[in-house]
Amino acid sequence: MKQKTAVIGGDARYIELIRQIQKNPDTTIDLVGFGSLEQGFIGCNQVEFEELKPEEIDAVILPITGTDEKGNVEPVFSSETIQLSKEWFARLNKSAVVFTGIANKYLKETAEEANIELISLLNRDDIAIYNSIPTAEGAIMMAIEHTDHTIHSSHITVTGFGRVGHTLANKLHALGAQVTVGSNNLRELARAKEIGMEAYPLDQLPDKVEHCDLMMNTIPAPVIDRTVIEKLPSQCVILDLASKPGGTDFEFAKRRGIRAILAKSLPNVVAPKTAGKILADVIQKIMKGES
Amino acid sequence: MKQKTAVIGGDARYIELIRQIQKNPDTTIDLVGFGSLEQGFIGCNQVEFEELKPEEIDAVILPITGTDEKGNVEPVFSSETIQLSKEWFARLNKSAVVFTGIANKYLKETAEEANIELISLLNRDDIAIYNSIPTAEGAIMMAIEHTDHTIHSSHITVTGFGRVGHTLANKLHALGAQVTVGSNNLRELARAKEIGMEAYPLDQLPDKVEHCDLMMNTIPAPVIDRTVIEKLPSQCVILDLASKPGGTDFEFAKRRGIRAILAKSLPNVVAPKTAGKILADVIQKIMKGES
Repeated sequence: MKQKTAVIGGDARYIELIRQIQKNPDTTIDLVGFGSLEQGFIGCNQVEFEELKPEEIDAVILPITGTDEKGNVEPVFSSETIQLSKEWFARLNKSAVVFTGIANKYLKETAEEANIELISLLNRDDIAIYNSIPTAEGAIMMAIEHTDHTIHSSHITVTGFGRVGHTLANKLHALGAQVTVGSNNLRELARAKEIGMEAYPLDQLPDKVEHCDLMMNTIPAPVIDRTVIEKLPSQCVILDLASKPGGTDFEFAKRRGIRAILAKSLPNVVAPKTAGKILADVIQKIMKGES
Repeated sequence: MKQKTAVIGGDARYIELIRQIQKNPDTTIDLVGFGSLEQGFIGCNQVEFEELKPEEIDAVILPITGTDEKGNVEPVFSSETIQLSKEWFARLNKSAVVFTGIANKYLKETAEEANIELISLLNRDDIAIYNSIPTAEGAIMMAIEHTDHTIHSSHITVTGFGRVGHTLANKLHALGAQVTVGSNNLRELARAKEIGMEAYPLDQLPDKVEHCDLMMNTIPAPVIDRTVIEKLPSQCVILDLASKPGGTDFEFAKRRGIRAILAKSLPNVVAPKTAGKILADVIQKIMKGES
């Protein structure tokens, strides 16, 4: 029997995501919120939200951002606002799976009340590691663009050596940078040293950044604070990759005349096709029961 | 005795170049054509061209582009045009050295007639290899910017494996790309294979590019011609790094709907500071008689 997938809103990544899911001959796809997209999707049904029959859907794919606290989805490729009410969730088949990038309180509660499985894709380790590749490439692009020196032979401090920090530090190291890693995790410090990078705990940051050309933060906590920024050379640039509001004291950096940039949604900006394929691959694995 | 250096015109790279030369306490510097630059150079003499005394100069540093065929220099940081006449060259001390990025017929003839040593910096292997680093980083920046997929796991063909091609292919390989090298040089093909890349002669290009996501040319000859472009997938992007007019049939690429971009002066665009230091280091070595 064919599986029915409903994609409700989404950004540039979702164009590739839909293309990938379309390749599966056992799936039919209903699209909501892609009306303003010039290229059509042959073989998909572009429908209004009201035309969806929740009882018949096997998989619901929400945007990476999920819904707001009232259940509203704002599609990028359409001006309509769609409300996913508690009543709508209750009508879903109990075996249905709802995919979102991130889940807020509303989504979690609503899915739980309706007894529907909710999967936050960005929380999964596999997605986060695959996604760290376009994130790191986007950060490298910004580093090349926003500095007047090469990455090669620059002194770059990467704070955090988790899924994103590890990938980023690896790539900078491969490009010939002098990479130093700041982290409070002993396993991360050991791994960074194993690769041949300098590594030290975060509380030593202020003593270590005197010659830093570029600071790249991946920790979603106030790590690049006043005590660190005070010690940075004035031509140092800070790129903050941590999710909003980042981990940098942007106000203080500005006062000190240090350029600090908060990067946003780099996978979607620099590699929507790759990022869409990453999502589709994992969604399809889950729907086949392989993951 | 102090050496006198005259810098006549130059682009963003020359700001760092001048800073580096200033560090040498045995040098005095006259600057011509930097009048519109907001930041002054403390310790340098900003002079008019007519105030220079060619008889007293030990080193003349011309812009990367040298002069036009009439000996005119057009400084980036000034609106004046400066003419380096044959008479002016004749007044230079016979031990003086004239540095330029590239030398045209006028410069070569004029220097020879005046019996003055002329050094074309970009012709030197050391400069070309050091410069290939910012060039490759600029190309990587463009690749990330102009494609919708990651460099990682992309199929990238690099044509040419000389000073720029080798550096570029190395870095793409380090970033996880599937790099294929096209070259007619047996030594280059062997080196590329040694690193773990696929490599083949240029006449096999049309048979090898069927799955190419990105084509990067470094050969200043018509290599990416109609026979190659015909076989490229339509979403492939061509980045041409060879000096003007590049090695791509841009007209035919456009007709086929394939995006082809000629990159210009990447070291100056992405890393003027590094590029200026590269030039200064070699100039200073030569002036000290070490090279």
